[in-house]
Amino acid sequence: MLMKIDVKETDRKPAIDLYQLVREMFPINRSQTGSGVRKTLSIIAHHIDLEINEVPTGTSVFDWHVPMEWNIRGGSISTLGRKCLVDFASNNLHVLGYSRPVQGVFSRAELARHIHTLPDQPDLIPYRTGYHADDWGFCLSHHLWQTMNDDAYHVEINSDISPGSLTFGECFIPGETPNEVLLSSHICHPSLANDNLSGIAVMTALAMRQARQKRRLGYRFLFIPATIGAITWLARNEAVLANIKHGLVLTCLGDNGPFHYKQSRQGAMIDRAVAHVLRHSSLRHEIMPFAPYGYDERQFCSPAFNLPVGCLMRGVHGAFPEYHTSADNLDFVRPDALHQSYSLIETVLDLLDADCTYERVDGRCEPQLGRRGLYRTIAGQREAGGATQMDLLWLLNLADGDHGLLEMAVRADIPFARLESAARIALDAGLVHARPK
Amino acid sequence: MLMKIDVKETDRKPAIDLYQLVREMFPINRSQTGSGVRKTLSIIAHHIDLEINEVPTGTSVFDWHVPMEWNIRGGSISTLGRKCLVDFASNNLHVLGYSRPVQGVFSRAELARHIHTLPDQPDLIPYRTGYHADDWGFCLSHHLWQTMNDDAYHVEINSDISPGSLTFGECFIPGETPNEVLLSSHICHPSLANDNLSGIAVMTALAMRQARQKRRLGYRFLFIPATIGAITWLARNEAVLANIKHGLVLTCLGDNGPFHYKQSRQGAMIDRAVAHVLRHSSLRHEIMPFAPYGYDERQFCSPAFNLPVGCLMRGVHGAFPEYHTSADNLDFVRPDALHQSYSLIETVLDLLDADCTYERVDGRCEPQLGRRGLYRTIAGQREAGGATQMDLLWLLNLADGDHGLLEMAVRADIPFARLESAARIALDAGLVHARPK
Amino acid sequence: MLMKIDVKETDRKPAIDLYQLVREMFPINRSQTGSGVRKTLSIIAHHIDLEINEVPTGTSVFDWHVPMEWNIRGGSISTLGRKCLVDFASNNLHVLGYSRPVQGVFSRAELARHIHTLPDQPDLIPYRTGYHADDWGFCLSHHLWQTMNDDAYHVEINSDISPGSLTFGECFIPGETPNEVLLSSHICHPSLANDNLSGIAVMTALAMRQARQKRRLGYRFLFIPATIGAITWLARNEAVLANIKHGLVLTCLGDNGPFHYKQSRQGAMIDRAVAHVLRHSSLRHEIMPFAPYGYDERQFCSPAFNLPVGCLMRGVHGAFPEYHTSADNLDFVRPDALHQSYSLIETVLDLLDADCTYERVDGRCEPQLGRRGLYRTIAGQREAGGATQMDLLWLLNLADGDHGLLEMAVRADIPFARLESAARIALDAGLVHARPK
Repeated sequence: MLMKIDVKETDRKPAIDLYQLVREMFPINRSQTGSGVRKTLSIIAHHIDLEINEVPTGTSVFDWHVPMEWNIRGGSISTLGRKCLVDFASNNLHVLGYSRPVQGVFSRAELARHIHTLPDQPDLIPYRTGYHADDWGFCLSHHLWQTMNDDAYHVEINSDISPGSLTFGECFIPGETPNEVLLSSHICHPSLANDNLSGIAVMTALAMRQARQKRRLGYRFLFIPATIGAITWLARNEAVLANIKHGLVLTCLGDNGPFHYKQSRQGAMIDRAVAHVLRHSSLRHEIMPFAPYGYDERQFCSPAFNLPVGCLMRGVHGAFPEYHTSADNLDFVRPDALHQSYSLIETVLDLLDADCTYERVDGRCEPQLGRRGLYRTIAGQREAGGATQMDLLWLLNLADGDHGLLEMAVRADIPFARLESAARIALDAGLVHARPK
Repeated sequence: MLMKIDVKETDRKPAIDLYQLVREMFPINRSQTGSGVRKTLSIIAHHIDLEINEVPTGTSVFDWHVPMEWNIRGGSISTLGRKCLVDFASNNLHVLGYSRPVQGVFSRAELARHIHTLPDQPDLIPYRTGYHADDWGFCLSHHLWQTMNDDAYHVEINSDISPGSLTFGECFIPGETPNEVLLSSHICHPSLANDNLSGIAVMTALAMRQARQKRRLGYRFLFIPATIGAITWLARNEAVLANIKHGLVLTCLGDNGPFHYKQSRQGAMIDRAVAHVLRHSSLRHEIMPFAPYGYDERQFCSPAFNLPVGCLMRGVHGAFPEYHTSADNLDFVRPDALHQSYSLIETVLDLLDADCTYERVDGRCEPQLGRRGLYRTIAGQREAGGATQMDLLWLLNLADGDHGLLEMAVRADIPFARLESAARIALDAGLVHARPK
Repeated sequence: MLMKIDVKETDRKPAIDLYQLVREMFPINRSQTGSGVRKTLSIIAHHIDLEINEVPTGTSVFDWHVPMEWNIRGGSISTLGRKCLVDFASNNLHVLGYSRPVQGVFSRAELARHIHTLPDQPDLIPYRTGYHADDWGFCLSHHLWQTMNDDAYHVEINSDISPGSLTFGECFIPGETPNEVLLSSHICHPSLANDNLSGIAVMTALAMRQARQKRRLGYRFLFIPATIGAITWLARNEAVLANIKHGLVLTCLGDNGPFHYKQSRQGAMIDRAVAHVLRHSSLRHEIMPFAPYGYDERQFCSPAFNLPVGCLMRGVHGAFPEYHTSADNLDFVRPDALHQSYSLIETVLDLLDADCTYERVDGRCEPQLGRRGLYRTIAGQREAGGATQMDLLWLLNLADGDHGLLEMAVRADIPFARLESAARIALDAGLVHARPK
């Protein structure tokens, strides 16, 4: 079903089993803060060199403050006969995020004001969180709620909201130059597999890979709670921002749908890079214009920063039926989709790292390829390096010191990797020299 | 039949009855000069503070001279038995504009050289004028002419062409800044309702409205004879031109057809403003590129001026069958069409006046809307002010001191008025400050 | 069948019979070097003032060296019984270009390694050349080769490859300004009528025409062997290159297919000029983006030169079945197609030569055309000069000193020649002055 990316070999496996990592993190109850986030980061830290940051409750971050920390140990609705009907232990979506502790007997009518269901998807449990509101609540399937007709229920939420800290993870892998690529995933959703864990898993594997790669650019991986995490990171890292030349927010990468790439606010090179890779991938995809709603690109692309950051997804928030429900589970996420997403981003990162400008040693006329053993018929056969004769002619023609390799590939409408091969051939033959971008 | 403009309430009535004003001016015989123009301007002056200018015959205006003044008291063709067949008193289109006086008996063959008919529209009287040519003539229906088979006819035109003046009206309503909007209609056509009076009536009502409005920009309304009137005004007002930031020539606004907007020569902001309002209006419309033929945009957009002036019409000159015939009458013009045209232009003027640049007080990340009571679900509900949450996010994201409000609205593809509401909310919350454009 | 170019009169005949010139040159055996090239140039030199250049074997030209000279007197394959089966004298395609001399008896198997056929076009002889490879070979129809089942054949090629020179012709016709137009055709193919001789014939006639014309620009016509000829010319003429403002490589202009224009690498004015003329010609055509494969635009558009040179063809190299076969013969090339190509390029050259900027003497408002006898109804009648009233209005509106005449024609979407007529009328009336571009 899923088509192959033909610009890169897709049989290069990530160093970890992506699906297994999703499965490992799935049961943990994550929220903006608290022990679930810490546990998630500790799992990631088994694989990569992760710096874990704790920022105290109340710390001022631009227009915001770091919130109180929320932790929960249990929550249930039972009949007065103590038959448990709804239990946090069976699905952590059952308790509204940031619920304050509660214990007691409530009439059905009182309880109803704290119940969240999905009448249009009556079998599913919704995911809801009440950010820092002094509230409590339960999320359950509409079908279950319809069967709950007792006059009163025993309710208990064993949680606390108290000063603590906001926790996030950061992994920076320096490159040969100060220029860097920012990758970011949110880590604040409980048992949601696609809208959370898919991005975390793919990003963890990418960090493992980039650490092993020879690289021109630095790579900065952020595992952060959405919104407040991004704001907190930005507030603490303003000095770093000038180095960020490209960025991607990664999320919802495990479903089986087409890719969606949302462009950066500024119309950055990353937009052309992702569009180029998708175009030559034979993967179904759609390019979406920037809009100030979605994931943390909202913060990265706020007007005073306007960073070159886009957002790569498969399913789009709010647009697939499993979104923010109990159906965004381990069945919804597929191993091959995760792998394909990893391969695609890997190709994009390799492109960004390899994108530089070439200039002919002597740009007057074509060089004589024949005496260098580089002249073949133009029938499309590839050289050992993967470039055709035509690719080499494009490279030699556009190697004027102005065109970057990506711009060449876009103009020639040839996959970047083939022009890159042509550049290597030309470099080896002493026909061009590379210029850092 | 006519659809509502949904960006503005269309139930705001103009201060005068547009159709009644057209009806009042319809019987008057207008030409480039003469008493008909003066009478028309005196009617307009009942409603607005109109400066009436008289420029003497022979005055040099760029490459031209103000022409002689033409006045006519009567004109007829009668049988030799004095039965009147064609009478200026019954329809002032019957006499060719600028006809010199004539009296006598003419053979049918001689008379035929002075007769204008429309063989393809045999029931209609054409409108013709012989600008300053030493000629005389009659315009009549082809059917009537075909029944006139006498050997000779008695002909009389009681007119004079003599030194006098060119008359035009101007109403300037100053704004808070020296920047101004130019609006212009021609006033030189006799009993033609759409191609003349519709523009005059709508513009009169707009001038009444703008005088009452709080306004940032000045508004300059010109009621001028076509071509020579525009040239005369330009020759006398070169010092004013630098202040004109936007302009519209208004004509043919009373028929029931779709709107046609002809762009300015320079590709000005007014083009984007009108296109934006039309796009969000659900009104049928077409955008036409600039061409150096049409109405007085020809003069305003001549190369040395190149003013930011477009032309708004419903029916396009020469393209509707009633054009320049006796069918362009009080039946052809419709009250609701006039009103709709008025509402559309009102919306455009409000947009131009409100278009300014906003800048976030602190553009780093999103502000925390929740603690300001500005955070709602993003389901599209409008705030009291008419803006949705999404509109507010767009405003806050694009408030970088560079994007004007119109540019924001175009990028977000949201009606201007909604972004304007969002800007007001953001201003009230102290999140942005406005910058004059 | 072929449609008329309506922007120019197509009944102006070239000064020579184009088809006759193709026929005269057809039998000659051309290659990159040698007596065939010299004979071809001597025929061209009967018609135009052609400078013939000889560049010695071994001369260094950028990354290349001028090759050895190849001459051939005969070549054949015969049965051992001396029955001649394949004879260079009957078709010079039969011998692989740059074949070294050979004489002897070869087994069929040995011979097979030197035989080139077209199994998919079994009646045709392919054209092949082995540039400077130490090889020999024969090209023949696949049908013939299939009948040759003897055990051995007698083979003879009477050729020599020895130091000599590379020969090319150049005709420069100076203009009033140092700016010039480059036109170039390759002259290195043997008996191929379209891919070689059509371009040579059309270019010869154009050189005759331009020498007779009053002209603002200089015209430089190059008759050169492909690739090495262009490289050699460029190496010897670097000082000239800054003067080249427009250029066309001309080839395959004699077949009956649609025109193909391949754009310059830099996106030059020549691209807009050719596209404009084609658009207003009612000729079938296609515009192709630049690519670094094809004819000598590869060298002219190499990165250090990046000259404003496109390539005009009818049939596209490799894309028509007769390409590089014995079917590209005197039947394939048609007199009317040659003539039409000539007319089209003539129109382009006249456009380039006439393209200048106009500025109104006084650009404020329209001038009064009536008192100059220039006011006509706008019904589309043309003036004596070929311009309509509307053309004149466009010219007067866009004569701002910035728009060139071609840019005006493109914006107004009016054939250049009509705007040129309007410019003449305006010049004669003293309304504009011309400014050199």
